[in-house]
Amino acid sequence: MKNNSYTFVLVHGAWHDGSLWAPVAESLRIQGHEVHTPTVIGHTRNGSRDYCHADGVRSIVNYILNNDLKDFVLVAHSFGGSVISRVAEEVPDRIRRLVYWNAFVLKDGESISDVSPPHYNELMTRMSAERGDDCFMLPFPIWRNNFIGDGSLELAESTYRKLCPEPMRMLMDKVPLKTFHELAIPKTYLNAMADIAMPPGEYAWYPRFAERLPGCRVIFMPGSHQVMFTNPALLAEKIWEAGRD
Amino acid sequence: MKNNSYTFVLVHGAWHDGSLWAPVAESLRIQGHEVHTPTVIGHTRNGSRDYCHADGVRSIVNYILNNDLKDFVLVAHSFGGSVISRVAEEVPDRIRRLVYWNAFVLKDGESISDVSPPHYNELMTRMSAERGDDCFMLPFPIWRNNFIGDGSLELAESTYRKLCPEPMRMLMDKVPLKTFHELAIPKTYLNAMADIAMPPGEYAWYPRFAERLPGCRVIFMPGSHQVMFTNPALLAEKIWEAGRD
Amino acid sequence: MKNNSYTFVLVHGAWHDGSLWAPVAESLRIQGHEVHTPTVIGHTRNGSRDYCHADGVRSIVNYILNNDLKDFVLVAHSFGGSVISRVAEEVPDRIRRLVYWNAFVLKDGESISDVSPPHYNELMTRMSAERGDDCFMLPFPIWRNNFIGDGSLELAESTYRKLCPEPMRMLMDKVPLKTFHELAIPKTYLNAMADIAMPPGEYAWYPRFAERLPGCRVIFMPGSHQVMFTNPALLAEKIWEAGRD
Repeated sequence: MKNNSYTFVLVHGAWHDGSLWAPVAESLRIQGHEVHTPTVIGHTRNGSRDYCHADGVRSIVNYILNNDLKDFVLVAHSFGGSVISRVAEEVPDRIRRLVYWNAFVLKDGESISDVSPPHYNELMTRMSAERGDDCFMLPFPIWRNNFIGDGSLELAESTYRKLCPEPMRMLMDKVPLKTFHELAIPKTYLNAMADIAMPPGEYAWYPRFAERLPGCRVIFMPGSHQVMFTNPALLAEKIWEAGRD
Repeated sequence: MKNNSYTFVLVHGAWHDGSLWAPVAESLRIQGHEVHTPTVIGHTRNGSRDYCHADGVRSIVNYILNNDLKDFVLVAHSFGGSVISRVAEEVPDRIRRLVYWNAFVLKDGESISDVSPPHYNELMTRMSAERGDDCFMLPFPIWRNNFIGDGSLELAESTYRKLCPEPMRMLMDKVPLKTFHELAIPKTYLNAMADIAMPPGEYAWYPRFAERLPGCRVIFMPGSHQVMFTNPALLAEKIWEAGRD
Repeated sequence: MKNNSYTFVLVHGAWHDGSLWAPVAESLRIQGHEVHTPTVIGHTRNGSRDYCHADGVRSIVNYILNNDLKDFVLVAHSFGGSVISRVAEEVPDRIRRLVYWNAFVLKDGESISDVSPPHYNELMTRMSAERGDDCFMLPFPIWRNNFIGDGSLELAESTYRKLCPEPMRMLMDKVPLKTFHELAIPKTYLNAMADIAMPPGEYAWYPRFAERLPGCRVIFMPGSHQVMFTNPALLAEKIWEAGRD
């Protein structure tokens, strides 16, 4: 139906790149939507990762402008939330709705690190120092137990092999958000109920980050932080519920 | 089965009237139950809305007495919770169980306004003043995003057209509940997990209001505050689970 | 598949014995797993209940040693959590993973009573004194509403008849856990979302006890504290998800 054909721009999380949205994007396209899955610069297994958070933001803004995208739903997963809030400041009039799927909603001047639990910060600092390339790779046991606990071991292993080291500056840079919290763009928080990538309790995704979006729609779904791998068709359906008018 | 045939009295929430229970009531009747859906006086699109909270309570008590209803499960949605607690004080011996479906459980002397978040109170006061008729109509964007976020836009629009302005006194009157919290009537809290009509965090329905009913049964279900429209058959099933002995 | 054939040792909760796992165990066996359901000593309707918590722990350790069980997933329900943490201290090298299904995770020197809400403690003390045999039997209304609220009345009644009085020392003894919190055994918290045996709010199972297992996997499922009776096949599936590598 013409009216129900939307344009979605999906912005991935840390350790991911745009290609990992493929099964979700395909499900949305089958429903008649146009879907874009740009990669935030620096998210690569083989190329340069020498980029800061502002570079990441600029890469998504450029993608939008180069493709002259308008009236789209801008969806973020996890780290991507810190990107789309800044993107929204740059191109507010092009965005129909912002959807945060278990994504970070930062205040002006906060970094991902600032809103993460101490044990993640210690781990990031230590492991980045060991690598010596100013990047951080999530250890497999955390991936398996806390990111994709609802998948099989085989799926946890095969998806882990597709991840890239995350540039530390993406996680450590303070993000300026001077106008974001005043923008009138409609917003949705999509919460996967078994997502413990942010651990249970005070650091949990929900309601912590939904509370930072007053009046936002909230959509719930089952599944873990990586439901994009464990149940992509359901995630596509929920992104639609989250994003439609 | 005779033993499993119950009588349910369903008391609606703000902006609703009894007729909006029709699909839920029909589902319960198909299961062999007797169902009553009285309207709390003043909840009308065309008639007089010049009534206070005590008038609303009396209208439900009168319905029960006029129909000589006994041994029934008294179910409330939302605002209706403030009504059935007072009704239970008036006719305790007639009630088999009280079911609060994402409903307000007030303490003695509280109003709905007292337990609502500041931004709702500001909105109510401002919009009621603008109307000038001492009523408050929920704005459509809140209805769509926070009350019926799990429905289609079409369903959100068609149901919104059935709503009536809410008399402010229903929401602002302090409700005396001198004996309610001592009543031995069994109680259930039925919580729709994606119900954000009360926003995420400290003002959320659950566990806030369930904690005010010590020892109550708790039943969970998926869905929004308006699951009566988005999934009435499931709601009927959960009202049965909530209400049975 | 050989790789996916595990050994599970299931440790029951208060008022239960090992035989009540039968439908769950059968579901796991059909999937090719080896399943053991030992009874914690003192959990009997007709025999001696004159045992302390350490006796209970020893009975499970002895079962493991007598059967020379190795490389198994040790699963606990409710009270059983206080047992398996101590068992893990005794035979850490035999355990592949610990799974706490709505189970108590105690700190060194805590008792079940210490982490239970005041109204349960008052009830236990009073009812145990009335019985005069240093045991506590859960009253039926609590069982029906707060433990098995998702089952029919008939199921609530038939399962209640299978329960045994709980030796008070199982609930009151301080449990020494000197090394448990340092053990490197992988751990999972399995949370049934409608489990209100620990009441809503500050005493709720989740996230309270999951937070005591840093880095644990968390698996969610629908259902009450007695989902072993109301949906044993689903519980078996979730125990597998919780326990697999």
